[in-house]
Amino acid sequence: MTTVRLATPDDAETVARMLHDFNEEFGTPTPGVEFLTTRCRELIDAEEMTVVLGGDPPVGVGVLFFRPSLWSRGEEAYLAELYVVPDRRDDGIGGAMMATAMDLSRERGATDMQIGVDEPDVDTRRFYERLGFRNHDPEDPTARMFFYEREL
Amino acid sequence: MTTVRLATPDDAETVARMLHDFNEEFGTPTPGVEFLTTRCRELIDAEEMTVVLGGDPPVGVGVLFFRPSLWSRGEEAYLAELYVVPDRRDDGIGGAMMATAMDLSRERGATDMQIGVDEPDVDTRRFYERLGFRNHDPEDPTARMFFYEREL
Repeated sequence: MTTVRLATPDDAETVARMLHDFNEEFGTPTPGVEFLTTRCRELIDAEEMTVVLGGDPPVGVGVLFFRPSLWSRGEEAYLAELYVVPDRRDDGIGGAMMATAMDLSRERGATDMQIGVDEPDVDTRRFYERLGFRNHDPEDPTARMFFYEREL
Repeated sequence: MTTVRLATPDDAETVARMLHDFNEEFGTPTPGVEFLTTRCRELIDAEEMTVVLGGDPPVGVGVLFFRPSLWSRGEEAYLAELYVVPDRRDDGIGGAMMATAMDLSRERGATDMQIGVDEPDVDTRRFYERLGFRNHDPEDPTARMFFYEREL
């Protein structure tokens, strides 16, 4: 049974350290733990970002942003990050954090959740697919949806 | 030269009608013009959604949402919708709206823009690719990014 709880501003450094390690592990640039601690504290405090922590002490982190839906009075959830420390993977922590993330999103009125996942991350894609996420039109598996991005 | 301007709450019905027509054209469910007018008015009024209108009178609409970036003090822009009425396509209106959308995103401190695009929409994908959007790691074209989604 994995403990999952919402992060408070006091968890900022714990959150920041895991997000920093996440980027280091995958060769993505990181602004560093100090910057991330300040940024996480202000975004959690302002309720502009929702963070779930998995494990006690925390060994996993999930970051959610919400925006209003255009098509209903509800919201749409965007899962920006999900990370579990390497030696605690395959231990159900990611699944427990996702269950909590989906529950709290439903509770605040979100109608769906979106995630960007890289094609080569086959294990990650399978993880989300087991949880009911699809990267294609339900009626047409060849009609996949791509995540396009550019720097401004 | 295409006129592009930001929508105000008074444009809600114009915005709603185009978004409704967009969904009808592509066989996507729509909550209808009346609901969309109310919803667009409240989201534009609350500055929770940014809408650009192309043409005078407007024949195109683009819908943007912003969220804070975790990695910088800036924001990330998400282009939720972009539509031009059928008989005014290939007339530079989409490109003019995108130029404005990117400019105003930069001005408010957004560092990047994201879009979900379906694989079979080859013309749309080419349009965004010409504008510098990529659906893959710049160093590895086989590492594409998928947009995963599920209802909650």
